[in-house]
Amino acid sequence: MQFASDNWAGAHPEIAANIARHAGGFAPANGDGPLDADVADTFGALFETDPSVHYVGTGTAGNALALSATSVPGGVVFAHSEAHVRVDECGAPEFYTPGLKIEAVDGPLGRFDPEALERRIAHVAAGGLNAGQPQAVSVSQLTEAGTVYTPGQIAAIAKVAHAHGLPVHMDGSRFANALVALGCSPAEMTWKAGVDLVSFGATKNGCFCAEALVIFDSARARHMDQLRKRSGQLFSKARFVSAQFEAYFAEDRWLDLARHANRMGAAVARAVEEAPGFRLAWRPDANEVFAIAPTRAVEALADNGARFSPWQPPRAEAGLVGADERMIRFVASFATAPADVEALAEALKAIG
Amino acid sequence: MQFASDNWAGAHPEIAANIARHAGGFAPANGDGPLDADVADTFGALFETDPSVHYVGTGTAGNALALSATSVPGGVVFAHSEAHVRVDECGAPEFYTPGLKIEAVDGPLGRFDPEALERRIAHVAAGGLNAGQPQAVSVSQLTEAGTVYTPGQIAAIAKVAHAHGLPVHMDGSRFANALVALGCSPAEMTWKAGVDLVSFGATKNGCFCAEALVIFDSARARHMDQLRKRSGQLFSKARFVSAQFEAYFAEDRWLDLARHANRMGAAVARAVEEAPGFRLAWRPDANEVFAIAPTRAVEALADNGARFSPWQPPRAEAGLVGADERMIRFVASFATAPADVEALAEALKAIG
Amino acid sequence: MQFASDNWAGAHPEIAANIARHAGGFAPANGDGPLDADVADTFGALFETDPSVHYVGTGTAGNALALSATSVPGGVVFAHSEAHVRVDECGAPEFYTPGLKIEAVDGPLGRFDPEALERRIAHVAAGGLNAGQPQAVSVSQLTEAGTVYTPGQIAAIAKVAHAHGLPVHMDGSRFANALVALGCSPAEMTWKAGVDLVSFGATKNGCFCAEALVIFDSARARHMDQLRKRSGQLFSKARFVSAQFEAYFAEDRWLDLARHANRMGAAVARAVEEAPGFRLAWRPDANEVFAIAPTRAVEALADNGARFSPWQPPRAEAGLVGADERMIRFVASFATAPADVEALAEALKAIG
Amino acid sequence: MQFASDNWAGAHPEIAANIARHAGGFAPANGDGPLDADVADTFGALFETDPSVHYVGTGTAGNALALSATSVPGGVVFAHSEAHVRVDECGAPEFYTPGLKIEAVDGPLGRFDPEALERRIAHVAAGGLNAGQPQAVSVSQLTEAGTVYTPGQIAAIAKVAHAHGLPVHMDGSRFANALVALGCSPAEMTWKAGVDLVSFGATKNGCFCAEALVIFDSARARHMDQLRKRSGQLFSKARFVSAQFEAYFAEDRWLDLARHANRMGAAVARAVEEAPGFRLAWRPDANEVFAIAPTRAVEALADNGARFSPWQPPRAEAGLVGADERMIRFVASFATAPADVEALAEALKAIG
Repeated sequence: MQFASDNWAGAHPEIAANIARHAGGFAPANGDGPLDADVADTFGALFETDPSVHYVGTGTAGNALALSATSVPGGVVFAHSEAHVRVDECGAPEFYTPGLKIEAVDGPLGRFDPEALERRIAHVAAGGLNAGQPQAVSVSQLTEAGTVYTPGQIAAIAKVAHAHGLPVHMDGSRFANALVALGCSPAEMTWKAGVDLVSFGATKNGCFCAEALVIFDSARARHMDQLRKRSGQLFSKARFVSAQFEAYFAEDRWLDLARHANRMGAAVARAVEEAPGFRLAWRPDANEVFAIAPTRAVEALADNGARFSPWQPPRAEAGLVGADERMIRFVASFATAPADVEALAEALKAIG
Repeated sequence: MQFASDNWAGAHPEIAANIARHAGGFAPANGDGPLDADVADTFGALFETDPSVHYVGTGTAGNALALSATSVPGGVVFAHSEAHVRVDECGAPEFYTPGLKIEAVDGPLGRFDPEALERRIAHVAAGGLNAGQPQAVSVSQLTEAGTVYTPGQIAAIAKVAHAHGLPVHMDGSRFANALVALGCSPAEMTWKAGVDLVSFGATKNGCFCAEALVIFDSARARHMDQLRKRSGQLFSKARFVSAQFEAYFAEDRWLDLARHANRMGAAVARAVEEAPGFRLAWRPDANEVFAIAPTRAVEALADNGARFSPWQPPRAEAGLVGADERMIRFVASFATAPADVEALAEALKAIG
Repeated sequence: MQFASDNWAGAHPEIAANIARHAGGFAPANGDGPLDADVADTFGALFETDPSVHYVGTGTAGNALALSATSVPGGVVFAHSEAHVRVDECGAPEFYTPGLKIEAVDGPLGRFDPEALERRIAHVAAGGLNAGQPQAVSVSQLTEAGTVYTPGQIAAIAKVAHAHGLPVHMDGSRFANALVALGCSPAEMTWKAGVDLVSFGATKNGCFCAEALVIFDSARARHMDQLRKRSGQLFSKARFVSAQFEAYFAEDRWLDLARHANRMGAAVARAVEEAPGFRLAWRPDANEVFAIAPTRAVEALADNGARFSPWQPPRAEAGLVGADERMIRFVASFATAPADVEALAEALKAIG
Repeated sequence: MQFASDNWAGAHPEIAANIARHAGGFAPANGDGPLDADVADTFGALFETDPSVHYVGTGTAGNALALSATSVPGGVVFAHSEAHVRVDECGAPEFYTPGLKIEAVDGPLGRFDPEALERRIAHVAAGGLNAGQPQAVSVSQLTEAGTVYTPGQIAAIAKVAHAHGLPVHMDGSRFANALVALGCSPAEMTWKAGVDLVSFGATKNGCFCAEALVIFDSARARHMDQLRKRSGQLFSKARFVSAQFEAYFAEDRWLDLARHANRMGAAVARAVEEAPGFRLAWRPDANEVFAIAPTRAVEALADNGARFSPWQPPRAEAGLVGADERMIRFVASFATAPADVEALAEALKAIG
């Protein structure tokens, strides 16, 4: 009953096999080999444009480098109060861009709306020199609450950002899960909706270590090689990241894996709904399920061997949790077995 | 005829296979799983002590993080004028530790001696507040000239460093090649000789991406989790780095691979010596071979399909290169085939 | 009618005269002269202890350096949501300590209470590695709302901070105004209440440029010379800062100047209360007065030649301002003439 | 006998008086007042162009901010091996621009020539991504050896820099001393010779604290307000810096003060030449005099009450100093009295 996080899963067998397949021979280092070029083309085809693609080692690095590519002195980035980039990177964005401040924009279920964003930007802009310069807007897709923004919602946010001259960054650590939940194309979810930079994560969805920074305006990527090298993010044997992406994208594998994870998430949600004493905190959009239950029931579930995460309720949703209750999170992944979900359902029922 | 660099090689089949072997199942993320603990024990056994071990994504990151663990405001690190950490990291150490300065210590063949180090430290120390605070000493093993420091030489340098209260860092991107060249133990080459922190590289010697920061005094590692996370160096699926190290260390594989690379390097050196027009710039200690030849001969060699690197002569050795000559570097690796060295030997002879 | 800010005032004549008095002769540079030592002694006498005192050029630098002296990797500082150090330094604290994040603690009238602080610290501490390390607590005295913390309130906050191992910083840009408002001693308002570092501002209260970082635990000041020098804050002719402080402290001048400013502030508050259409946003504690009035009345006041600042209502007090109203701020200073306050009172009355 | 440094001198009486003269009344803070505008105009008139002028608190800050205005990721600045900006700022430039590296260019007497610069730039450019990006060239005027560059020499250097697309920064902490030594105009010594940014120092030449960053291409100054604010360099009562500059420039006072300092320097040089046992290390161009003498004689001079600085011989001039000898530096200033030089001459003679 493994639902702690999608990064507790391993790697898909085909992706692991592709690393082995490319292990022999020699190729130019630092991402200059033929496989690297092929995979860059694949990114282009998937996004129906010609983006600048840069591998990094972790999602944290992808987010931090993306924001550093938008850097202005005294810069202020706007992100949801619960956004990973704001509260869960141990200060990485602020370290990669010394002087950076990330301003919270509030909103329910991990999302903010265009009006809330407009108010926060206007507040900072009215603060003059002291308040710093608005720099960029960052949206998370999936959000921290496991919800999605629709392309229309993203476009409305991007309209506000662009009106202030600010680029839009998408933290896509669960990009594929959001994409299949929405049933749209990568282009529709990103640049067609006004997104300028994407931290494209594949690690959680079946790779070992495959994260890419995708930049649609190549002018913004001008110094990215230096930014990556000086932050220790330039893999010398980058071909092995390319090998992961090659297998990830082949035969729509990435979409299949995400669909599976989301289906397993939906099954977990049903199990929660059917379990006496447990309830959904809110309806999940993809593979992350947030539940509320009496403390005693949560402890019993853990004692019965289920792996999940205690969760600090977001400020906007704190009222959902009663006095003797706890919020918890289950995450399904590409590797979640239906039998594991069934075992969880049984365990949940047994507690009630 | 692939001698451009050891990071043009791929991964050893057993190492690639071990990634696949560990691809299934679930394990705690961020390096907290059982395989991670096993490999940490292996590091302890190999170094005959109980070091603090931290994976990072690249050698650049390992060096930059190691130095940041020694950070003092206004800090000055002492390294060889040609050291990778000083001139080949695109400013990564200076970026990871804002305000850091890396002071050059001169010496022939990539090495400095204790007297030269003492003079530079004393010079900075005499400069008072303006000159900053001496912070650490960094030695490269292999050096940028492909030479080794003996444990005795390291100990003499560490004695000077420690007398000034400075820790000693070793950039071990080619740790194994140096180790087998010296025929000593990891402990003898490091902490027994006074080294406090090692950037332990395995990527060049047969892994895809396996670099570790090894810290002998755990007090110095106190904030390393935060330093790694905020610099985007904390792999969520760290078990796959562990998997590489597991196979790397198994059955002394890492030493065998390095011995092979060094033998191939020696064979390249012989081929250079026997080729009319070519000569060794200096006698190699391990798998890197520096040669000098007329520009015309160098171009002919490249035209014949040999892959090697043009090399800017170190300041101390600039006089070795004549007016119409060029310095070049060949690197052999774990993956270098004897047949490829023979082909190179033939190509070299054919030019003369 | 000059009430825009206390930094629109000039310098007290005796302070300016003392600069001239010390203009001749030679003295060791960088704060090592006899006058510098004398003034350090005066700080010691005033604070009834032996603090480490470091001049800096601006209040911004004092705050940023103070926090950098508490630095830990992944550090999180806790400050009021409206605190200058959080939203009005153009990112200076985040720049001086790359990677720093300043977390907002809410509370009415510019103050937070121990319970709110405890909740925020606990929230971050519960977030594990991702959330970073709690680093320090910063209180502003005066607050951004022109209110004061009593020594008892400070002590209660410091108790929470220290229980978590966090030092307490006081942003004392209006230290003297708060001190005379409370009628306590510098020691009572700082270290006796648990404050560990003070940004001691004198510029707003009659100096040209005299700011000092006062550190009670000298261990924390260990690298302060390097921190100051590398941030460009080490005045070569520091004796002229000492000269300002000498005259500032002489004959309790600093207290007299602050008392005058606070009295003028109280007179402004009365004028606001008596003006039809205008009302106090809240009762002022010192020399800053916040008022609310119809937009039309505010514009008329400005048209009549009064200088004041439009003010964005703090989030906690936003409800005080009606639909067609505006919040404004008046600041009195050591240099405010009673006649100027009377003129303001007349202008206010004329509008109603 | 005060020759330790020109920052041991105080402030010129007229400059101190002008601070007092502007002490009363109210003026917009942060450099937005009428006096600030007047002084900006004076800078324009003196430089015969319309530069962007920004006050900072120290020469260190001026240099660090100037280089940060030229920042590129992985940036490498080229400066003389002995340049203050490279070895005497406690890492300030590297702190203001995290990741910055300052590369040494060698040359005798504190100057490098265009050929040496070309070689160093070409070396870094040939190093590819690892070596970083050439960013800017910095020249010191006076140099660390107290010598001057002629406008022609500066132009030749700027030609090399500009050919590589690099801006030229001048560290002008002793700008006036160099200017009167050359007898040229500020424009001829700067932008007409290709200089793009100047750290214009007035503190050493008679002010208390008056340093300005002068930028000729306003595009380069675009974010300077934010850069200054976030580094704690924006004086709230900037009018008092303006007041110093007003008196400094009035009636060519700054040139007179520098001429006096240089004359006193020349007199010191004559005294050294005439003293048995002492000799000039090299002929001084302005107010700094470097001498060599037996250790015993140097100690005797100090014992006799003369204030001067022990000096570590620059690498290029280390051969000038014999085994039992020492290099020392005398600095004359605007405040140096002829009688003090005569006393020094007597003391020197008495030792021989």
